[in-house]
Amino acid sequence: MKTSGGSDAAKRRAGESAAEVVDDGSVVGLGTGSTAAHAIRRLGDRVDAGLDVRGVATSFASRELAVDHGIPLVGLDEAVGPDGPGIDVAIDGADQVAAGDDSSALLKGGGAAHAREKLVDTAADRLLVVVDPSKETGVLDGAVPVEVLPDGRSVVAEAVRAAGGEPALRRAERKDGPVITDNGHVVLDCAFGPIPEPGSLAATLAGIPGVVEHGLFVGLADAVHVGTADGVCVREP
Amino acid sequence: MKTSGGSDAAKRRAGESAAEVVDDGSVVGLGTGSTAAHAIRRLGDRVDAGLDVRGVATSFASRELAVDHGIPLVGLDEAVGPDGPGIDVAIDGADQVAAGDDSSALLKGGGAAHAREKLVDTAADRLLVVVDPSKETGVLDGAVPVEVLPDGRSVVAEAVRAAGGEPALRRAERKDGPVITDNGHVVLDCAFGPIPEPGSLAATLAGIPGVVEHGLFVGLADAVHVGTADGVCVREP
Repeated sequence: MKTSGGSDAAKRRAGESAAEVVDDGSVVGLGTGSTAAHAIRRLGDRVDAGLDVRGVATSFASRELAVDHGIPLVGLDEAVGPDGPGIDVAIDGADQVAAGDDSSALLKGGGAAHAREKLVDTAADRLLVVVDPSKETGVLDGAVPVEVLPDGRSVVAEAVRAAGGEPALRRAERKDGPVITDNGHVVLDCAFGPIPEPGSLAATLAGIPGVVEHGLFVGLADAVHVGTADGVCVREP
Repeated sequence: MKTSGGSDAAKRRAGESAAEVVDDGSVVGLGTGSTAAHAIRRLGDRVDAGLDVRGVATSFASRELAVDHGIPLVGLDEAVGPDGPGIDVAIDGADQVAAGDDSSALLKGGGAAHAREKLVDTAADRLLVVVDPSKETGVLDGAVPVEVLPDGRSVVAEAVRAAGGEPALRRAERKDGPVITDNGHVVLDCAFGPIPEPGSLAATLAGIPGVVEHGLFVGLADAVHVGTADGVCVREP
């Protein structure tokens, strides 16, 4: 799902750029999606070359990729628990980044991994966002993925309409019926049009009974690595 | 879990009192716990006597009880969907009711059913709360049950501590390890001491990544039926 627009070369430059700034000895949150995958592969190369890191996966998919590329993993609970090392940095993609916004608000969840991504990205000391230029926008305006208890989808849909959004149940392709997340829930993609105040909408969505997590990430990004046709731009909001 | 204090006779008076005010033709949300169970049994008696109602269960347990007592059921999605009849009234218990509070804020989740209870109670046109006098308090001060994605428990525990609470993972009795909810999640019982502003704490808890639902029900109760030693008091906040 997370493949709209953007050249693979630009995604690769963004992902690899963020992977390069990871320090030896770090615990690293491993994001989900095609751009974060480039970061994971590059981290794997650095591990082959002797880098000492441990990864915390944000999804089944990022875990699988990390295992394939030889990155030692640590559980989120272990990393963040009372005696854990914490998470030094997370590298994650986004479906949209509000470039004109001081908070660099993100829209995530095209890959339906946003609940665990938000857990890891929030727990990390720093979040590095990796995107190609097609993901940058002045104001977020994509549909907001909202992960929902399956039983609650009608109740949530009604509350989303009351908040000015139009919800659509995300249908699966390789199975009948809806997409089921790694956590066993369904996803409503909720179109609100432009979202000038993502923090306010985030609070509204979080307060709806039946909502497990929504795809607005506000105030979390510490740096945005944008891969371009011939290089990388890094913004620090 | 939902059995602290309170005589069974008082619970029965409260539950039966609420069941008596259900109109013919209604769709009724069926709460969870020992007091709501009395309402379900009484509704079953009324169905035997010819009452036409359909129930919407708030849990595995309330569904089972409704089936045993011959109450026809309808799914939450069917009831609340675009062409559904809606839910006219819900009858549900509480672990604490803030009697001194205009909003009649409730603390729920002793039975770990609060996520689906909140869905049903919110969707209902009216919520009738049924309790014995031991559940009434001036200010809520019980530990707040917070249902959490299993992977997120350390991250959520840290955020709860930052918000001034002390989280404890609810341990199971008839299985090893933690209680697992009907939705497949774990529960952190979070002690905050007195909660003078439940609406504010509710918003804080709802905004923590990894939180599926919390046990504060603010502004939902339309009437509170309190069973006493020799009768019932009904308050309408």
